[in-house]
Amino acid sequence: MRKLRSAPRPQSLVRPLVRRLRPYVPGEQPKIQGLIKLNTNENPAPPSPLVLRAIKAAVDSRLRLYPNPTAQALREKLAEFHRCEPANIIVGNGSDELLALATRAFVEPAIAGPGHSRVAASRRESRSTVQFFTPSYSLYPVLADIHGARRNPVALANDFGLPPLDDLRRSPAWNAHAALTFITTPNAPSGRAYATAELTALCRAQRGVVVLDEAYVDFAEENALELALKFPHVLVARTFSKAYSLCFLRVGYFVGGSELIAALQKIRDSYNVNGLAQLAALATLDDLPYYRANIRRIRATRERLGAALTARGFEVLPSQANFLLARPSKFPAQTWLEKLRERKILVRWFAAPAVRDYLRITIGTDAEADALLRAVKAIL
Amino acid sequence: MRKLRSAPRPQSLVRPLVRRLRPYVPGEQPKIQGLIKLNTNENPAPPSPLVLRAIKAAVDSRLRLYPNPTAQALREKLAEFHRCEPANIIVGNGSDELLALATRAFVEPAIAGPGHSRVAASRRESRSTVQFFTPSYSLYPVLADIHGARRNPVALANDFGLPPLDDLRRSPAWNAHAALTFITTPNAPSGRAYATAELTALCRAQRGVVVLDEAYVDFAEENALELALKFPHVLVARTFSKAYSLCFLRVGYFVGGSELIAALQKIRDSYNVNGLAQLAALATLDDLPYYRANIRRIRATRERLGAALTARGFEVLPSQANFLLARPSKFPAQTWLEKLRERKILVRWFAAPAVRDYLRITIGTDAEADALLRAVKAIL
Repeated sequence: MRKLRSAPRPQSLVRPLVRRLRPYVPGEQPKIQGLIKLNTNENPAPPSPLVLRAIKAAVDSRLRLYPNPTAQALREKLAEFHRCEPANIIVGNGSDELLALATRAFVEPAIAGPGHSRVAASRRESRSTVQFFTPSYSLYPVLADIHGARRNPVALANDFGLPPLDDLRRSPAWNAHAALTFITTPNAPSGRAYATAELTALCRAQRGVVVLDEAYVDFAEENALELALKFPHVLVARTFSKAYSLCFLRVGYFVGGSELIAALQKIRDSYNVNGLAQLAALATLDDLPYYRANIRRIRATRERLGAALTARGFEVLPSQANFLLARPSKFPAQTWLEKLRERKILVRWFAAPAVRDYLRITIGTDAEADALLRAVKAIL
Repeated sequence: MRKLRSAPRPQSLVRPLVRRLRPYVPGEQPKIQGLIKLNTNENPAPPSPLVLRAIKAAVDSRLRLYPNPTAQALREKLAEFHRCEPANIIVGNGSDELLALATRAFVEPAIAGPGHSRVAASRRESRSTVQFFTPSYSLYPVLADIHGARRNPVALANDFGLPPLDDLRRSPAWNAHAALTFITTPNAPSGRAYATAELTALCRAQRGVVVLDEAYVDFAEENALELALKFPHVLVARTFSKAYSLCFLRVGYFVGGSELIAALQKIRDSYNVNGLAQLAALATLDDLPYYRANIRRIRATRERLGAALTARGFEVLPSQANFLLARPSKFPAQTWLEKLRERKILVRWFAAPAVRDYLRITIGTDAEADALLRAVKAIL
């Protein structure tokens, strides 16, 4: 009885799975006066004046009401934009929410079960597998861990391209039956985009759900959205955070077959998308020329900065995104991170072996690119 | 080979658990001109002018940046307000997000496992159990289902009070070891608040995590926040949606022991709280007198409306929330729902046996209460 009356130890109340987790570490958001922030792939331009006006105009008594639970108007407008039906679209509190929902909707948690036949065990394993290429978005393994799923990281080629499909098919590392496969295109941190033809073949070969994470696609030459409407097992993830300057408001969406979308709708929070975020995204779609011009500027700055860094001895990978992955000259990448930080320029460095020799540099304004180039010159 | 090349059937890609789910149905949000909306417990007053100004002032180029990932400033201010540490607080995209996170952090999905001893089976069962009283917030069983946990609904007393603790202890229906127990106080849809002394005894008897869901507590006589800081296994849920008129922006939070809070932090989305929502909640805490006056008005309207409905033959339950549960006279409750809807007044009716004879009526403005009373008179 005494034992029953004492308070339970809090750690014992947390699932062992959660106790073991190491949380995802987002890029720093330091508040340093005059800092040039090129570390989290944010857009240097503000949202369009029309979007800012639309949000301000909505800041009134409607805030007391629940937002539309299914982001109906936004889904209708996105459906028109992508030439599909609202049933092919789910909106999330950032695309991160949707990536997590996909893990929970399509992947069984891995359970160490007792003896079954070998075939059954391998099927069970596939149903619990989250597959992704490395290096890529470091959230994927975290989502697998949180859900208690198996991670199946598969190395990209040395040039960060997709391994040829025939190689993948033969490779014991690749799982054509993985319940969920994340493919980021253009990829982060490499900046490399995969050809739609290549993605089509890969999707065709997969027996589980494939999420093509196109967070950066607005900065690329082509996109693979058609695959989400062609294959019932393919979802394409998009976001308003990167090309549409709305990080602060958290809006992302998936396009895909209505059956998979309906499954995700069932397990999301009832009012998952903030009302002002819904309105801001709607207004964004009314002012696309503003964003197209901005995207053109970022791409031009990307090419100019890439060429200038190359001239300084950096090995700059071709990028289809709003950042560059570059192997700096003279000092190790981590040293560059520190040296640039001393000059109030923040870039991103990852400790993973495949990219530890590189810096990931977000494309900011032209002035920020010039400041970076001056700092590079001074450091060299 | 042919079989391998055909596209997988999308339904087979969705977890059987998710296929079986029936989604939570939120209250209607119809767009009818002139509708009096008393169905989702929204606040009739807008947010304070200071809050509206603070949001508008923030609608600028900062929207391009990620919001603070941990809602640091808001957590600091809430910690000051509740006399605890920021480590005792997690902010969510509405408290609904946090209720879902609690389910995932503290409850094991139920797995039909092979033969173990009876004791082990019962322990395993408790670890997979989400317990809640009925009638209460209809989201709890949905959260259990989404997670693949066991629901353990336990009936409230006939007067919607908590069953006496000694009765619960003796009852085979009650599980003192349930991994997670949700207690809504004041409860919805009954409006009844439980005494802190009673909640203290109940928390003391529980071996799993207890969430005291205080969404409506600002309209009540007392609150049980102290229990979240006293017991390491107790969390208190609060929201800015009800008393603080911010439904549209989705902000809720938990207060509790730092170990449980840390577990929840590990599994949430990285940027789960919209930046404008964080700022709006901060500004709200700077203008509490506005909200206190508004809460007093709502309570006064609640008492007046309750007395007037009683005079019309309704059986009105005492309420500590911003709504009334009332058993109408003359016609069945569902008929009243229809008759009021014909007069453009929307209230809520639940089909569950314990409450199917009642209407849940949100407390709106005095004018809305008068309109409701006129409609009641006309219908009678």
